[in-house]
Amino acid sequence: MKLLKVDTLESALDKLETAMREGGAGEPEREYVPVLQSLGRIASEDVLSCEDIPGFDRSTMDGYAVISRDTQGAGETMPTFLELAGEVKMGEKPEFSLTSGQCAYVPTGGMVPEGADAVAMVEYCQPFGDDRIAVYSPLSSGHNMVRAGDDVSRGEKLISRGRRIRPSDMGLLSAAGKTEIKVYKPWKIYIISTGDEIVPPEVMPLPGQVRDVNSAGILGEALACGFEIRGLEVVRDRQDVLADKVRSAMSECDVVVISGGSSQGKKDATEAVIDSLTSSGAFTHGLAVKPGKPTIIGFDEPTECAVIGLPGHPVAALLLFRLIVAGIWKRLTGLAETEKEISVDAVMASNIAASPGRKTFQLVKLDYEHIDLKTGLPQAVPVLGKSGLIRTMSAADGYVVMDVNDEGLRSGERVKVCLL
Amino acid sequence: MKLLKVDTLESALDKLETAMREGGAGEPEREYVPVLQSLGRIASEDVLSCEDIPGFDRSTMDGYAVISRDTQGAGETMPTFLELAGEVKMGEKPEFSLTSGQCAYVPTGGMVPEGADAVAMVEYCQPFGDDRIAVYSPLSSGHNMVRAGDDVSRGEKLISRGRRIRPSDMGLLSAAGKTEIKVYKPWKIYIISTGDEIVPPEVMPLPGQVRDVNSAGILGEALACGFEIRGLEVVRDRQDVLADKVRSAMSECDVVVISGGSSQGKKDATEAVIDSLTSSGAFTHGLAVKPGKPTIIGFDEPTECAVIGLPGHPVAALLLFRLIVAGIWKRLTGLAETEKEISVDAVMASNIAASPGRKTFQLVKLDYEHIDLKTGLPQAVPVLGKSGLIRTMSAADGYVVMDVNDEGLRSGERVKVCLL
Repeated sequence: MKLLKVDTLESALDKLETAMREGGAGEPEREYVPVLQSLGRIASEDVLSCEDIPGFDRSTMDGYAVISRDTQGAGETMPTFLELAGEVKMGEKPEFSLTSGQCAYVPTGGMVPEGADAVAMVEYCQPFGDDRIAVYSPLSSGHNMVRAGDDVSRGEKLISRGRRIRPSDMGLLSAAGKTEIKVYKPWKIYIISTGDEIVPPEVMPLPGQVRDVNSAGILGEALACGFEIRGLEVVRDRQDVLADKVRSAMSECDVVVISGGSSQGKKDATEAVIDSLTSSGAFTHGLAVKPGKPTIIGFDEPTECAVIGLPGHPVAALLLFRLIVAGIWKRLTGLAETEKEISVDAVMASNIAASPGRKTFQLVKLDYEHIDLKTGLPQAVPVLGKSGLIRTMSAADGYVVMDVNDEGLRSGERVKVCLL
Repeated sequence: MKLLKVDTLESALDKLETAMREGGAGEPEREYVPVLQSLGRIASEDVLSCEDIPGFDRSTMDGYAVISRDTQGAGETMPTFLELAGEVKMGEKPEFSLTSGQCAYVPTGGMVPEGADAVAMVEYCQPFGDDRIAVYSPLSSGHNMVRAGDDVSRGEKLISRGRRIRPSDMGLLSAAGKTEIKVYKPWKIYIISTGDEIVPPEVMPLPGQVRDVNSAGILGEALACGFEIRGLEVVRDRQDVLADKVRSAMSECDVVVISGGSSQGKKDATEAVIDSLTSSGAFTHGLAVKPGKPTIIGFDEPTECAVIGLPGHPVAALLLFRLIVAGIWKRLTGLAETEKEISVDAVMASNIAASPGRKTFQLVKLDYEHIDLKTGLPQAVPVLGKSGLIRTMSAADGYVVMDVNDEGLRSGERVKVCLL
């Protein structure tokens, strides 16, 4: 029974990464996209700034640019009187500079004139006549202004390779005059559900038939990775039919996933298809993971295509897609290094047994209404139900992981919840 | 000085919500989309199942369907022998039923024949001849199978109004035969940056000029909400020019945001424009929020358009977009009720002062490498820098919030970090 030679999750990922790197598919292709279309894309190289940002000393308040030394000793009852030397216009370089005893009006965002090193807020100033300003507060150097290069200095790294672009990054790139950014091209993926009992969602199942749950769920997970969906199909669980479909999908895709058809049933053809169609053969014949044991992995060098057989049970299929397909994408793009896996600290609301010898993933809901009194943390309430029940995953907020050697989690035990 | 009559964040949102509801823009429009294109969309009504899922008792293992009572007392040295009554074919309803003393082969996902109430895994069974099976383990009723309706029963709610659709929801909807779902139509939004010092990102700024940071950042935030971008423009800080642009944008959009031009500088025209172009007039003239005080809000009934003046400082602009625009979207779609604001418990790495009388938002990085020893939580390291520096927001993982009456946070104090 081949399925007993299972890999750990980590060794399966290592094997797949090695096969892809050695087979020429180590780093996804790259492309330039406009910054305005880069949200959620993954930077494929470091981006450095060619300029100082801002390019000049800039006021952060409406007020009067001053020489801070002049304001020493100023106070509510004893203002410093300064000569108004001019007014800075927005977006223009002032044509004057300040010397001791002088000040100049500057609006928020305006250029602080040469000589000045601080800005007194209008609220702390009072004009006397047309050409004198009383300043009622002492200022330290740099107050109410940012200096040239304070935001970003020339040559500084704006974005690291592997960074998933956020709105603020789009702002930062724009600030530096970047209108395009080099990102990884999304993988092309083909999604196949197999099983003679499976009918497409739009079909009313006959007794003994069920609708295809996995295709839509996996498509959602693939879209969340940014992948390009090249096809979505229910294929009969017959080796020749499945092989034809997988072969043609491999020729145009980076990844083909097949869900179902990888347990030990008499008709399951997925393992044989992956084994025969990939140059590596199937190198992972099952995972020490619960749920998700019947996971099959191979890589084909000529087509540079990974073929992944996911379990048929929907929860297992979606979870393993994340762990294997999204997992290897994150490794190869560098996303795994730049992005912390955000987890929420919580406390188990009840006991949960681990599955001996397997890394166990338990779906949980986070209960913020019944905070654990001792720790102040939310409770993690196990969402129970077999992995064939998609409802459980839809109802869960995340999952907790028990390691191969763990016996389980006790009620009240502190856990980290990975978010779905 | 109008800016001193500031609203709290909550009262500003309440005012805007009331104005929009009373002005006929309370609930966004709705549309049907295919389930396969529904990722991230927000359900605009509850979705109920019209069927039991699965529609029949279903095996979760390759094995033998049995009557559990027959296996009582079975063990490794003392198997129960059962007559093999037939084999269930995938996707078909078996034409036989079981009576006491009988069993039938059933593959994973196959229909459990009438009469049977459990499935013995193949691993615990041994064929004897062609028509007898030895079962080496006792089974309880329901073992290794799911019953009709176990996943979802007819009439049960699959999706709640206000739910943001996840991959598993797409699977769940497919399981129930739903191929379309009614969701909220994205708002149409127009993004304007104003300020005479602002040039578009592709232009090399002259001394005194800076590139437009806010448009790209706000566009990113708007895309993250799923909004449709109708325009993006830098407009001069002159009331007549700005008013023309805002008026035409209002006629085709649900929301117009203008960043910059809302402090007290001499040329700032945003407040006057919002005041004059909305039927409500500007009803919020500033927020007791730091950063983000110069935020102006109005709503126009005839065009059903909200006009929001955001601060010019990029960090403040992006933060206030989230708090006000995304905030009101979440309220009106019901997302605010269905989705917990996920926050990460952490411990402050250093002291931070609050701004008296204002709700203070402090950007932080999460440090998982220097876990707080007493609590086991990550540290929240303040990302310091004025709100004019977009770099600080790009570098942060999230923010902590100090309430109006808080004096600040002490090093070592427990905090909740809202993720960016």
